[in-house]
Amino acid sequence: MHESLTVVDGLQYANWDRSIFEQLIAGGVSGVHATIVYHETCRETLLRIGEWNRRFEAYPELIRPVNDMDDIRRAKAEGRVGVFFGAQNCSPIEDDIDLVAIFRRLGLLIMQLTYNNQSLLATGCYEAEDPGITRFGREVIREMNRVGMVIDMSHSGRRSTLEAIDISTRPIVISHANPLFFHDAKRNKSEQELRALADSGGLLGLSTYAMHLPGGDRCTLAEYCDMVARTVDLMGIEHVGVGTDLCQNQPSETLTWMRNGRWSRTLDFGEGSAAQPDWPSQPSWFRGAGDYPNLTAGLVERGFERHEIARIMGENWLDFLTEATRPQSS
Amino acid sequence: MHESLTVVDGLQYANWDRSIFEQLIAGGVSGVHATIVYHETCRETLLRIGEWNRRFEAYPELIRPVNDMDDIRRAKAEGRVGVFFGAQNCSPIEDDIDLVAIFRRLGLLIMQLTYNNQSLLATGCYEAEDPGITRFGREVIREMNRVGMVIDMSHSGRRSTLEAIDISTRPIVISHANPLFFHDAKRNKSEQELRALADSGGLLGLSTYAMHLPGGDRCTLAEYCDMVARTVDLMGIEHVGVGTDLCQNQPSETLTWMRNGRWSRTLDFGEGSAAQPDWPSQPSWFRGAGDYPNLTAGLVERGFERHEIARIMGENWLDFLTEATRPQSS
Repeated sequence: MHESLTVVDGLQYANWDRSIFEQLIAGGVSGVHATIVYHETCRETLLRIGEWNRRFEAYPELIRPVNDMDDIRRAKAEGRVGVFFGAQNCSPIEDDIDLVAIFRRLGLLIMQLTYNNQSLLATGCYEAEDPGITRFGREVIREMNRVGMVIDMSHSGRRSTLEAIDISTRPIVISHANPLFFHDAKRNKSEQELRALADSGGLLGLSTYAMHLPGGDRCTLAEYCDMVARTVDLMGIEHVGVGTDLCQNQPSETLTWMRNGRWSRTLDFGEGSAAQPDWPSQPSWFRGAGDYPNLTAGLVERGFERHEIARIMGENWLDFLTEATRPQSS
Repeated sequence: MHESLTVVDGLQYANWDRSIFEQLIAGGVSGVHATIVYHETCRETLLRIGEWNRRFEAYPELIRPVNDMDDIRRAKAEGRVGVFFGAQNCSPIEDDIDLVAIFRRLGLLIMQLTYNNQSLLATGCYEAEDPGITRFGREVIREMNRVGMVIDMSHSGRRSTLEAIDISTRPIVISHANPLFFHDAKRNKSEQELRALADSGGLLGLSTYAMHLPGGDRCTLAEYCDMVARTVDLMGIEHVGVGTDLCQNQPSETLTWMRNGRWSRTLDFGEGSAAQPDWPSQPSWFRGAGDYPNLTAGLVERGFERHEIARIMGENWLDFLTEATRPQSS
């Protein structure tokens, strides 16, 4: 008899409440990367952290904050979910490099350098061209390396992604995306990027968001798990995890905020369209935070060994973050 | 007997005090574009406007705020200097397109899309590559056109400058730079840019900052006025003005702020170097705000007609801004 799997989800943005936390626990999840930022400025990010502080106080039997990865192991032993913070944009640091260390101290373990658009640091995947990492971006990568804040390039352009991997002296993540060979989408990643990510010791979190799947919500579990196998073949078993991109119970206004922030006076539909502006449905085998056992079962069915499934479902994230969030000794 | 020239300086960033205002008046200046922003955020820009409100109260006999160009004509009649605001960076609007209209309402007539580095809107002239105007940048240009806020590309990369000219439906400015043919510097502008600027009805303000001059502060008035003549030949008399880039009485800390903002943990020296980190000396014929008559005399000496000198020294700025700062009827 083995110990149960340690499941870590490399990205979620639920409309967090008791029911979501209960589903996560029912789904066997011990750690979840919770997005706290899409376009939030420094001050607004503090609001989001304040809201999480209140949740930790309100649901002490269900969740615990994660300051280091031992907190995820503790959460598992306690039957709770460890929550760690990430930003999908560099907006929290605004124009100030000193804010990197400050937000790391406040528990922001992961930060994307861009969210779809050009940022002060790098280029997002929706811009027409990508000239790579900016002058400020190079400084910030060095600083993130120093303080142990993980660089995430999920929503970045291809050249910026490759340059971030190259410039960073520590491995980075693509926390929630799929390979381009699985489904052709701006948000999915080329083999070149995935190889470079793996070669540098980085980690890919595979997404279950319908826009990242062939056939959208009609993508089957077997097709998905076959993609997992192909990705493992490409990158190696140590470099593949899960980052479901679940955005459970979010109203359509949230999607509009994610896509438009404050940058446009006309509506941008991102991965959607004027005809289909709303959230896509999730595939039937992954509708919510309780459905991780379906994924585990699918991987068993696809022929993965138990130790491989353990890596994919959480051990890779745990090992990666243990190392990557340690401040650099200098 | 003619009326005296109407002198308008297309960019200054003095350490403003009574003595500077008195020099401007002694120099015959009726209007000055005062930089209020290098890296200031929205809130910090309000601080700068607040400081100017106090100056307008403290020196009512010397200066007056400019809400429209008639205020410059009034200032001239009163023997005062009309001060209008500009930002050398898009940092005041942060990530919020609605701030364009708000800052226009507060008297910000001119805004650069970038200051040396990549911004959310466009690429600065110190970045290695320039992919042009971003998605957000296109939205902001449309909004600046709508509210009558002038686009300034003085510190931008070449492709961003050309694209801004092209995308904007209204003429733009390069408020303070010189032609590249005069002196090879990242901040000076190619003939292609200057031709496109003139063809679109735009305006160039010629700089007296030593880093933009051949031989630095040893550049002679005759050499400078010869450059003016060549620039007029290239662009046409209607498209050339003055934007001295005078930064009188500023301590070296200000230069460090301009160059580094908050974006770097290591010192960037911009147009200077570790060996020469401080402000360069001004050429002997343009040391301060009282020296405009030297420039006028130099243009006379170079053979310009009076009506041409009037255009270069101020009428072009006045005519341009009268049209360009008018809100678009739609």
